[in-house]
Amino acid sequence: MSISAFEHPFLSGLVGDDETGELFSVKAEMEAMLAFETGLAKAEASCGIIPAEAAERIAAALQTFEPDMAGLRNGTARDGVVVAELVKQLRDAVSQQAGGEAARHVHFGATSQDVIDTALIIRLKRACSLFIERLAALEKAFEDIDRAFGTQTLMGHTRMQAAIPITVSDRIRAWKEPLTRHRQRLDVFSETGFAVQFGGAAGSLEKFGDKAAEVRKALAWELFLTDAPQWQSQRDRLAEFANILAMISGSLGKLGQDVALLALMGGAMELSGGGGSSAMAHKQNPVAAEVLVSLARFNAVQLSGMQQSMVHEQERSGAAWTLEWLILPSMVMATGAALRLATELAGNVRSLGTG
Amino acid sequence: MSISAFEHPFLSGLVGDDETGELFSVKAEMEAMLAFETGLAKAEASCGIIPAEAAERIAAALQTFEPDMAGLRNGTARDGVVVAELVKQLRDAVSQQAGGEAARHVHFGATSQDVIDTALIIRLKRACSLFIERLAALEKAFEDIDRAFGTQTLMGHTRMQAAIPITVSDRIRAWKEPLTRHRQRLDVFSETGFAVQFGGAAGSLEKFGDKAAEVRKALAWELFLTDAPQWQSQRDRLAEFANILAMISGSLGKLGQDVALLALMGGAMELSGGGGSSAMAHKQNPVAAEVLVSLARFNAVQLSGMQQSMVHEQERSGAAWTLEWLILPSMVMATGAALRLATELAGNVRSLGTG
Amino acid sequence: MSISAFEHPFLSGLVGDDETGELFSVKAEMEAMLAFETGLAKAEASCGIIPAEAAERIAAALQTFEPDMAGLRNGTARDGVVVAELVKQLRDAVSQQAGGEAARHVHFGATSQDVIDTALIIRLKRACSLFIERLAALEKAFEDIDRAFGTQTLMGHTRMQAAIPITVSDRIRAWKEPLTRHRQRLDVFSETGFAVQFGGAAGSLEKFGDKAAEVRKALAWELFLTDAPQWQSQRDRLAEFANILAMISGSLGKLGQDVALLALMGGAMELSGGGGSSAMAHKQNPVAAEVLVSLARFNAVQLSGMQQSMVHEQERSGAAWTLEWLILPSMVMATGAALRLATELAGNVRSLGTG
Amino acid sequence: MSISAFEHPFLSGLVGDDETGELFSVKAEMEAMLAFETGLAKAEASCGIIPAEAAERIAAALQTFEPDMAGLRNGTARDGVVVAELVKQLRDAVSQQAGGEAARHVHFGATSQDVIDTALIIRLKRACSLFIERLAALEKAFEDIDRAFGTQTLMGHTRMQAAIPITVSDRIRAWKEPLTRHRQRLDVFSETGFAVQFGGAAGSLEKFGDKAAEVRKALAWELFLTDAPQWQSQRDRLAEFANILAMISGSLGKLGQDVALLALMGGAMELSGGGGSSAMAHKQNPVAAEVLVSLARFNAVQLSGMQQSMVHEQERSGAAWTLEWLILPSMVMATGAALRLATELAGNVRSLGTG
Repeated sequence: MSISAFEHPFLSGLVGDDETGELFSVKAEMEAMLAFETGLAKAEASCGIIPAEAAERIAAALQTFEPDMAGLRNGTARDGVVVAELVKQLRDAVSQQAGGEAARHVHFGATSQDVIDTALIIRLKRACSLFIERLAALEKAFEDIDRAFGTQTLMGHTRMQAAIPITVSDRIRAWKEPLTRHRQRLDVFSETGFAVQFGGAAGSLEKFGDKAAEVRKALAWELFLTDAPQWQSQRDRLAEFANILAMISGSLGKLGQDVALLALMGGAMELSGGGGSSAMAHKQNPVAAEVLVSLARFNAVQLSGMQQSMVHEQERSGAAWTLEWLILPSMVMATGAALRLATELAGNVRSLGTG
Repeated sequence: MSISAFEHPFLSGLVGDDETGELFSVKAEMEAMLAFETGLAKAEASCGIIPAEAAERIAAALQTFEPDMAGLRNGTARDGVVVAELVKQLRDAVSQQAGGEAARHVHFGATSQDVIDTALIIRLKRACSLFIERLAALEKAFEDIDRAFGTQTLMGHTRMQAAIPITVSDRIRAWKEPLTRHRQRLDVFSETGFAVQFGGAAGSLEKFGDKAAEVRKALAWELFLTDAPQWQSQRDRLAEFANILAMISGSLGKLGQDVALLALMGGAMELSGGGGSSAMAHKQNPVAAEVLVSLARFNAVQLSGMQQSMVHEQERSGAAWTLEWLILPSMVMATGAALRLATELAGNVRSLGTG
Repeated sequence: MSISAFEHPFLSGLVGDDETGELFSVKAEMEAMLAFETGLAKAEASCGIIPAEAAERIAAALQTFEPDMAGLRNGTARDGVVVAELVKQLRDAVSQQAGGEAARHVHFGATSQDVIDTALIIRLKRACSLFIERLAALEKAFEDIDRAFGTQTLMGHTRMQAAIPITVSDRIRAWKEPLTRHRQRLDVFSETGFAVQFGGAAGSLEKFGDKAAEVRKALAWELFLTDAPQWQSQRDRLAEFANILAMISGSLGKLGQDVALLALMGGAMELSGGGGSSAMAHKQNPVAAEVLVSLARFNAVQLSGMQQSMVHEQERSGAAWTLEWLILPSMVMATGAALRLATELAGNVRSLGTG
Repeated sequence: MSISAFEHPFLSGLVGDDETGELFSVKAEMEAMLAFETGLAKAEASCGIIPAEAAERIAAALQTFEPDMAGLRNGTARDGVVVAELVKQLRDAVSQQAGGEAARHVHFGATSQDVIDTALIIRLKRACSLFIERLAALEKAFEDIDRAFGTQTLMGHTRMQAAIPITVSDRIRAWKEPLTRHRQRLDVFSETGFAVQFGGAAGSLEKFGDKAAEVRKALAWELFLTDAPQWQSQRDRLAEFANILAMISGSLGKLGQDVALLALMGGAMELSGGGGSSAMAHKQNPVAAEVLVSLARFNAVQLSGMQQSMVHEQERSGAAWTLEWLILPSMVMATGAALRLATELAGNVRSLGTG
């Protein structure tokens, strides 16, 4: 596959990120969807909606479930979403292992959005944890550089012109402080932002009567997610998260641009690593720095699409929802790749500033 | 002037908003810049950087200062920013009223970004307060509609198709809940987001020695802003605020799209107001609803530009900074206009749902 | 008015452009709309749809028509478009001067989109001519620079690193060749792109029977526009034109970035002009160069909104149409300003390259 | 791989397109790069730059070349572009088959951009041909629908409200006419737009002396591309092509939105096919129609990134170039998928309008 540079056989060496990529692999996606269906069965059993035995059998059967991918692809082509076909395959699997009685209880009271959005949230939550760790590591790397070179001098530049000398510490603060804020933003977002989506056909959980809230709470608990009313036509949390992603890559783009300019001017920064040229052996290109700029501009562009998806009409918009699918995974990847590259870049700083 | 529909002689009737527009009038901008210079003089006097008498004279002279706008325009054309010329005019004014000794102390230790960005923050803070009020009023309007019609029935629609019936309350929750979250986001942002910008020539407050932090704190106090280290090349707070603006207009765009679709299908909603046609007397167009969609898509587009400005190279990027000037005021206006239109629309609901 | 930097009292010194601004003044807009109504009356008279005398009286009355702007603003607020109220004012004016019989024939068979879109096309056509002239002048300026300094040497840079020496001519070709192509694109677009919009209530010119095509052709002839079937829900020509605008400012953004980098590195370029600093008297900032980058990125962002407007549902979309109004005039202004600044910049080149 | 929905194991059933995908497979990419290197050797031999025998041996060796993908990935990670490592592998392969003398002549005088951009153009040209065919087929499908149902009646809608009746032909014209123009735009673009990129290290073909133009012309002839001066920092043709892509998907998005609204209102359109629901067996969702809207908005967003890449600093910008890699292939895919879906949708129309 080579449409997306993030998973392209050779371009992924430049802009990919294995760890982030795994979170958005189809394997992780299937696992998250199965976790939803298993968690749902358990939650419904714990609230007396379905028999406890059915929930156990569903859980057991789904542990060994192997999807028929061609079938899922056809189903998605037909229905616009994978869930109808997936549930059919799940019911067949449960039925074969545990009989039709248990199979009937699979996916009870749920709808496509419940599965897809909750499975997305499960994976975004993991990406969030990963990015918090990477931001912290990057902050620490800047602290190390500061300790080593902070008192050295850099020429401060405003409007692309030499202004007055500043310290290396001054410059590092401009790189590091936003990262600390981004990490705090992710922390704050984590408190309530990773909310289970559970609403049934049109968001009203109409099959659960007065037990709706109880089932949803139990489901959230099973999945380690925040319990919150269904939000299938309210996409603001996703837009907010996407904006944090864009801010992270944006701040790293500023870092990249600064490093590229330091490399261009020469003299004030020494980096190990850096790329070669097919035509000129003498060049040491600031590759990672440039790619940070690309990734920043990429996410800045994509964010516009996530915001367009806020216009999510009625109870569920196929158009707005599909647009998110086309955009959000790439934004997560770009952010992961930017954090990876920035960490490499920070690790390659051999000197900064002049004595 | 008629480039911007927000201030166009007749289009502003549709997409303008007087109250928001005033916050971004040149009058408000000048006042905020003079507030900065006055506050700076007071802060510097309180820290013993300039004589108390000079600060008083500066404050007195600036109260009656009338800018030479043609001069400011020429200065901006020449310097890329108004501040050098403005400070010259301010010093002339102070000199005439209070002598050259006081004039010398105007703008001491500050730079263009300190004036422009702080003056921006002063006005964004006001816009934030205005939008918090409007969001609260709009939430209340939806509560009123809910009380009146919440138990009525609407056909729920998923993927542009009738799904199952829902209650009017279900739909209103989808409109109202995001607004509550947006209001909370503005509240949280207000706690630390409206930070004074004060850094001097290249951000290091090099003229204040060990009193730098003290002067900045006093300046923030004078201007009712958060005290924070200079952030002139760290634009994440602006990107975060712009994202909240886009989320507000985005959620209102969803409302607008829903209302336009209700109007299209007929039968489930009665609105007073609504626009006429030059060709067909019988039509009642859901004008406000459609414009809410336009404003949502507009802000979604613009946000991308604010994120591009995150790549703010070195100590101050003329390119990235100017881009913000081209974009952010329109985003604030679009948000103000969307809130105005949504409030009108909510007030025009005569019935919703069927018995 | 100060929302839009393009018409802001002092920022317009930097990013404004008087000549382009005039084309999008409300005066020019009113003139173009009156030209439509006058042309329509003449065309309809020439085809025997309305009496020749009525057309003459309409033409005479509209020549001295003074709009009630407050009325137009209210009408736009109510109807979402100015035309219903404008036509009412026009009919009143004609009625007062020439009696109700002539007044009845004003705007006969036309609808809002016919007036607004045709009036837009009239002004875009002028902007196109202006930009063609400016591009040609700029190409000539680069030819002059090439003649003066073309054989000098510049260090070629790839990936922000010195590569191998090139000639000044090599660099100038990279600046100039795209401008020539853009000029040709505008030329080609002019051949058919500035098409009259004339469709009546829902695009079918239902009031003209088998004379519809004849009237439209006569109308196009009156307005010096291309005759083409109504296109009110087909916005591709506008998207194509907007893309040419973005390409022009984009190529000038590349010029700006190159000049800013030359200024940063020093030694290879000497410019007269350039901006001062409020904090540092010694700086000569490459203001115009930086603003070219801002304008390029601005138009790149806006273009996305013009493309969103391609999703123009049914016979006329209020939402998609209003979005264009919020975006296209600013794109034209940004392009005009970029051409102005680039021409100034080219005129300020005192030397380029080394001997 | 599952980051990109266009090549996702099951989402590709919805938004993928096999035929377009093949053009952007890594296999096609490698073939195009090898075609460049082979064509280059032949061109250089024909101009007497390298021995004819070397060219023959290079051509023969490259026919059976199998890349070491892990090596290419590492090389790209290191250099920011695959070419240095690819050329190394090619030289090794030629050396093994034909000796070091021939190997030395591989890639002579060329640089990374020559290979990558020319290989891109080769594939874009194929995509262009494919899309021209598909547009023509789609136009024909609309002609068929017009013949079958053109005289039937549809209610025309303006501003989301019933206006006056129109014919089905009226509506079909709004869908079809822009497609004809897009096809013509692709035709016109094809005349000169698919230009070979050949400039050497910094664009000046410095290794060829006065034979530079001759070699480039021969290379263009070998590759069936337009001969034109190198354009490595002039990205306007790519922006223009990307804009045509966005216009195509944009016009199809308008079709999709119209069909979705027809489906919502019911009664005027009958479609075969359409998707099921996991929760409601009775629903027939207009899946293809909605996805057309998603793809239109996706490309509208992406185009902004292609325009940002116009700011391509100096002789070659790693940052701007990498951004194109992240964006353009997805735009081509979205266009291909939109054409596929629209053709399916047109083929599913069972009736349109009322008698």
